[in-house]
Amino acid sequence: MKICIVGAGAMGCLYGGCLSLIGHDITLVGGRSIPVIREKGLKMNTAWTGPVVVYPKACNAEELEGEYDLLILLTKTFQSRAAMDSVRHILNNKMTVLSLQNGLGNKELLQEYVATEQIMLGMTLYPSDLIAPGEIVSSFADIGALVDAEGPLSERTRKISAEMDKAGIKHIIGEGAWEFIWEKVIFNASANTVCALMGVSSEMLSPIGAYDLLYQMADEGVAVANANGIPITGEGMRKRLFNILELGKTHAPSMLVDITAGRKTEVDFINGGLAREGRRLGIPTPINDVIIQLIHLKENSRGKEYISHS
Amino acid sequence: MKICIVGAGAMGCLYGGCLSLIGHDITLVGGRSIPVIREKGLKMNTAWTGPVVVYPKACNAEELEGEYDLLILLTKTFQSRAAMDSVRHILNNKMTVLSLQNGLGNKELLQEYVATEQIMLGMTLYPSDLIAPGEIVSSFADIGALVDAEGPLSERTRKISAEMDKAGIKHIIGEGAWEFIWEKVIFNASANTVCALMGVSSEMLSPIGAYDLLYQMADEGVAVANANGIPITGEGMRKRLFNILELGKTHAPSMLVDITAGRKTEVDFINGGLAREGRRLGIPTPINDVIIQLIHLKENSRGKEYISHS
Repeated sequence: MKICIVGAGAMGCLYGGCLSLIGHDITLVGGRSIPVIREKGLKMNTAWTGPVVVYPKACNAEELEGEYDLLILLTKTFQSRAAMDSVRHILNNKMTVLSLQNGLGNKELLQEYVATEQIMLGMTLYPSDLIAPGEIVSSFADIGALVDAEGPLSERTRKISAEMDKAGIKHIIGEGAWEFIWEKVIFNASANTVCALMGVSSEMLSPIGAYDLLYQMADEGVAVANANGIPITGEGMRKRLFNILELGKTHAPSMLVDITAGRKTEVDFINGGLAREGRRLGIPTPINDVIIQLIHLKENSRGKEYISHS
Repeated sequence: MKICIVGAGAMGCLYGGCLSLIGHDITLVGGRSIPVIREKGLKMNTAWTGPVVVYPKACNAEELEGEYDLLILLTKTFQSRAAMDSVRHILNNKMTVLSLQNGLGNKELLQEYVATEQIMLGMTLYPSDLIAPGEIVSSFADIGALVDAEGPLSERTRKISAEMDKAGIKHIIGEGAWEFIWEKVIFNASANTVCALMGVSSEMLSPIGAYDLLYQMADEGVAVANANGIPITGEGMRKRLFNILELGKTHAPSMLVDITAGRKTEVDFINGGLAREGRRLGIPTPINDVIIQLIHLKENSRGKEYISHS
């Protein structure tokens, strides 16, 4: 397949690198790794490939030309519109566009650019760290999920998922995939934001006694998911939260890293997505509403912190 | 009057020092200033007295003896029970007991020790900084409020207020005093906690864009106050919040200082007091409920913060 990956951060490089390795025609777009990959290739070291260098194409959006079978969008959610605008000249009514980004609202955004039948959504739990420009590490295999934006499982989704399988990146499709996607949003909405507000990484959530609050936040997310027809249970989601956190697989969550680095977070797409869906469906999300405001204040507080004189 | 002040921190020293200066028989109890005051007196420098040294008595609770006309409780709210237990041997059914502490719930606690008719409550907006043990600075005169815990304004409250007036510490009594007390609780519940969570002092609340959230929190407090018969308005409270913050009179709020220093905060008496009253009166306080949990997590997070490696 001829695949264009827009957003060549840690995750874009992982998907691009692995799909390149099994022979797909990959072009990576955007980010500080592009010049390095162009010159020296992409160094990857994943749990399932070992250390390897691959040579996908790498360029800026305006250099893209020709027809692509698949475009994978992997920028930060708040950069989606700028990213899609920058590749507008290669969009056509046959290609598939897949968002593997965090949060809710990705479908609605892509509908501004292509027909709903062309849109796939997904999520990934694979870890990937960009340890230097053009160099990633993925220390264990996990799972993702892929769905058609609307309607039953399509042949196209089946085929794309099979190619990703071959590349070592496994995804759930069909029955249950939407549940995975919602569970990740709910997980991020609770654990990720509390880490960012407290300035602690996720393995500290238990020691500081955060589970009560995380569970209350998860309950709000589950109620919104249920009203959206996703059959997850509060108890199931609590167990999932607990298991992910106790297994300690998560590294420093992105919202904590963003806050620490003084960057904007994806809160408006994660908790904001839940809150918007909640409003649409008549489900109150009071805790998420407060958390969204506090995360924005935290974004604005960077560099203004009080320094004790005692 | 023979007055015992339990909790000789910055505020206890201010009240004790000023009342001592006009001839009252003052004993200060508890805190690291006690040995210094015993040996060298209490150094104060207030906007209305100038620099002066006064010589109140100073001792530990178990050394107290005899009968006192007035006991003023000025410990942190979560130390109230331990403080009152330590002075149980000097309590009698004639003396007045005045809590000038933050938050709500002080009346209920004192009712475990003395009759309701003996209890006065109050609040103070006077600043006081303990710059060294036995040495305080109060840089401007402000206002406080004094009320009887129950019933109309008593002769006793009028008399105590008059003595404090003479000492340079002015208080509103009668009509309107309860409003002042509630307004301070609501102010602290909103501005103080957001500062503590963001790690910024109060003059940063406007630059980081916190007013929307502060106003939402204040609205919850006003609804609880109204249900309690206190006739403050949402608009009035918003103006008061804005004015206090814009006048910039506040120094680093105590909850921020407590969090920064790794100490317990008074959140359970401030926001917790509002939330308990809300539950009792059927007024929801969803934002304050979340904030209380977050402040406790922040208390527990001290020393566990994530350190970025990038």
